[in-house]
Amino acid sequence: MSLVSQAVHAAACDPPAMASSLLHCSDKLPFMNVETILHMKEGLGETSYAQNSSLQRRGMDTLRSLIINSAADVYLSQMPERFAVADLGCSSGPNALCLAEDIIGSIGRICCRSSRPPPEFSVLLNDLPTNDFNTIFFSLPEFTDRLKAAAKSDEWGHPMVFLSGVPGSFYGRLFPAKSVHFVCSCSSLHWLSQVPPGLFDEMNKPINKGKMYISSTSPLSVPMAYLRQFQRDFSLFLKSRAAEVFPGGRMVLAMLGRQADGYIDRRTTFLWELLSESFASLVEQGLVEEDKVDAYNVPFYAPSIGEIEEEVRREGSFRLDYVQTYEINLSSSGDAKEDGRTVSMAIRAIQESMLSHHFGPEIVDALFAKYTELVTASMEREEVKSVQIGVVLTRL
Amino acid sequence: MSLVSQAVHAAACDPPAMASSLLHCSDKLPFMNVETILHMKEGLGETSYAQNSSLQRRGMDTLRSLIINSAADVYLSQMPERFAVADLGCSSGPNALCLAEDIIGSIGRICCRSSRPPPEFSVLLNDLPTNDFNTIFFSLPEFTDRLKAAAKSDEWGHPMVFLSGVPGSFYGRLFPAKSVHFVCSCSSLHWLSQVPPGLFDEMNKPINKGKMYISSTSPLSVPMAYLRQFQRDFSLFLKSRAAEVFPGGRMVLAMLGRQADGYIDRRTTFLWELLSESFASLVEQGLVEEDKVDAYNVPFYAPSIGEIEEEVRREGSFRLDYVQTYEINLSSSGDAKEDGRTVSMAIRAIQESMLSHHFGPEIVDALFAKYTELVTASMEREEVKSVQIGVVLTRL
Repeated sequence: MSLVSQAVHAAACDPPAMASSLLHCSDKLPFMNVETILHMKEGLGETSYAQNSSLQRRGMDTLRSLIINSAADVYLSQMPERFAVADLGCSSGPNALCLAEDIIGSIGRICCRSSRPPPEFSVLLNDLPTNDFNTIFFSLPEFTDRLKAAAKSDEWGHPMVFLSGVPGSFYGRLFPAKSVHFVCSCSSLHWLSQVPPGLFDEMNKPINKGKMYISSTSPLSVPMAYLRQFQRDFSLFLKSRAAEVFPGGRMVLAMLGRQADGYIDRRTTFLWELLSESFASLVEQGLVEEDKVDAYNVPFYAPSIGEIEEEVRREGSFRLDYVQTYEINLSSSGDAKEDGRTVSMAIRAIQESMLSHHFGPEIVDALFAKYTELVTASMEREEVKSVQIGVVLTRL
Repeated sequence: MSLVSQAVHAAACDPPAMASSLLHCSDKLPFMNVETILHMKEGLGETSYAQNSSLQRRGMDTLRSLIINSAADVYLSQMPERFAVADLGCSSGPNALCLAEDIIGSIGRICCRSSRPPPEFSVLLNDLPTNDFNTIFFSLPEFTDRLKAAAKSDEWGHPMVFLSGVPGSFYGRLFPAKSVHFVCSCSSLHWLSQVPPGLFDEMNKPINKGKMYISSTSPLSVPMAYLRQFQRDFSLFLKSRAAEVFPGGRMVLAMLGRQADGYIDRRTTFLWELLSESFASLVEQGLVEEDKVDAYNVPFYAPSIGEIEEEVRREGSFRLDYVQTYEINLSSSGDAKEDGRTVSMAIRAIQESMLSHHFGPEIVDALFAKYTELVTASMEREEVKSVQIGVVLTRL
C-alpha cells in the first residue's frame, strides 16, 4: 500500500453512507449533483454518445470473451430456468445491447449442443435516470430480430428475452435481493458518485488550481480526496451488488485505471491535462473566467489494481478471480487527425452535460475546437494509449 | 351473444398468433405498424401527453380504491418477500407513477400495523418501445423522495423500491414466467395491436368511407373486423399474462367500453365521429385528400362486458371476480370552452403520432382547431360522457 493510500485509509474509516446521501456535499462545495447531471450526450446526432463511443467499444471488445465465458460458466454451474444479466452503466447507443446479445447467443448455443431448452433471459440495462433510455428502447425491435435470426441460423430454439431499463445510481441498490446471475459494467466505474469533498480549503478556495483531475501540480490532498471518494463509492457498489447477485453469480468489471504505482499514470491523466490546457487557452482569450476553471473538478477516478483488491477484500462478499490491466491504443487508425477527432468527440459526448452545467453551453464548441487541436498535435508526436483494468469477481 | 359477435367467432377460430406476427397485415392494407408508431406525445410541452392526461387520470381515480385494495389483498394472501407490480401501458407523465406510489404506501401501512418488515417492491412500467420513458425516469428522484416522506410520516420502514421500464407490446410476453403479483392497466387495452384487417374490399378500396371507427354508416363487416381483432388481441393478452402472473395474483384492467348491447355506444363513438367531421371540413377546404381520410382507421376497440367475459372464459387461466361499467363525465368543469379544449388536447396527445404518420404533420394544427370547435359546440348543447369498464381477474 502506498503512503497516500495509507493516509487515506486512516481518514476513511467512517461507515459507508448510502448513495443518496453521498450526493449531498459539504456546504463549502459548489454543488453538482452527479446523479441528475452526468449523462452521455443523448440521441443519435453528430455529437451524440451513440455516434462517438467507438473507444468504449474497443475497451469492451478487449474483454468480450472474458465476459461471455464468465456468463456461460455461471449458467453452466447453476442451470437456472431464468438467467438474469445486468449491464451497469449501459449508456445509450449501439454498445448498450451488444454484450447481452453475445451472452444470449453463447448460452443459447450451449443449450442447443446439450439438447436443453434455453433459459428465459432477463436483460437489465442500468444507467442514471438522465440517460437516454428512449434511444435504446427504439432499437429493441431490431435487437429482437437479430436474436431471432441468430437463433435460427444456429438452430437453437427461439429465445425468450425480457429486456428492461433500470434507472438509478449503481452506488446503491438497483435490483431485488438475489435476483441477478451475472453483472457486467464497462467504462463506467471510473465515474464517482460525486466530485470528492476536500478539493476546497477552509476559505472555500479551490486547491486544485487550473486542473480538473489529479495532476503533477496538485497538492497531495487532491489524490487523497479522490482516493477516499473511490473507496467509499466502490465499497458501496460491492455491498449493493452483494445483496443482489445470487451466490455463485459473477461480475466482470472494466474501468480506466493505472498501471503505475504512484497516483499519476500519464496515460490516464493525459486527456484531462489537455482539457485543462484547452481551458487555459479559453481563459487567455477572455472566454472563460479563471475562477470557474479552478473550481471545476471531474467526478472521475482511475484506480490501481491494488486499490481495487483492497476494497474487494475489505467488503468480503466476493472472491477476486481475475484482475489485469490492458492498454488501449487510441492512435488506432495511424492518422493523427482522424484519431484526434475521434478521441475529442468521445470526451465531448461524455463531458458535455457536466461542462455545460458548470460553464454554460456556449463555451463547448470553442473548448472542443482547441481540444481537438491539442489531442491531434499529441498524436502526431507519439502513440497515445489508455489503461483499462478488467476484474472478474464471484459472489461467495 | 349478439349476432355480430357470433358471426365473428365463427370466423375467428384460427389459433392466436404471436404479437409480432399480428403486426404484419395483409398486403392489401396500407401498413401501419402500431408498435413502432403509436405513442403518447412525448416530453412536457403544451401538447404533450404529460400535460394533457387529466381525463385518463379521472378514469384512473374512479378505480383507484379497487386497484389499491386488490393489490393489498394479493399481498396479504401471499406475504412474499418481494412484491412485483406491473403497470401495462403506463405512458409518460404524472399518471405513470401514482398508482405504484399508492400501492406501495398501502402495503407499507399494512405491514407497519402488523409489525412486519415491508417487502421489497418491484415496479415494472410497461409501454411500447416508442413511449417516452425518459420523462418518467427523470421524475424518479422525486418519486423516491415522496415515498420516503410518506414512509416517514406514516412511521413505516424505508421501502426498498426497484423501478424498471419494460418496453414492448402487452400483446405478447413482457416478463419472465411467474414473476408478477399484481398487474394494472388503465386506459390502454382499448388500443388494438393493429388496425384490423378486413377494412378494405377485394379491389383494395376502403369500406369504411369517411369514418375512422365503427359508425352508424359503416357496413356490418366493419364492426366484425374490429371485434375479431379485439378477440385475438385480448386473448393473447390473457395468455401472455397467464404465464407471468403467480397463481393467486390479480389484474385490474380499465378501458373504454360500451354499455349498450349493440356495437355502437354513442358515448364511445362520439369523439371519433367528431374527428371524422373535422376531417370532412379539411377535405372541403382542400387541405386533405378524401382518399386518405377513407383509408384511415384507428386501432381502437371499445368492448362490451359480454365480449370481455367471453374471452376470459375461453382463455381459462383467470377467474373473473368483478366487472362493471362506469360513466366518466367529460363536461366536468361545466365550462364548455374549457372542457372542449381539455378533451381536444387529450385526443391530440393520443392520436398525433398516428395522424402525422398517415396524413403528414402539417395538417395537425388545422385539424385540432376544427376539432376543438366541434367538441366545444357539442358540450354547449349537452353533457358529454364516456364509458369505461373496470375488470378484476385472479390467476387460477
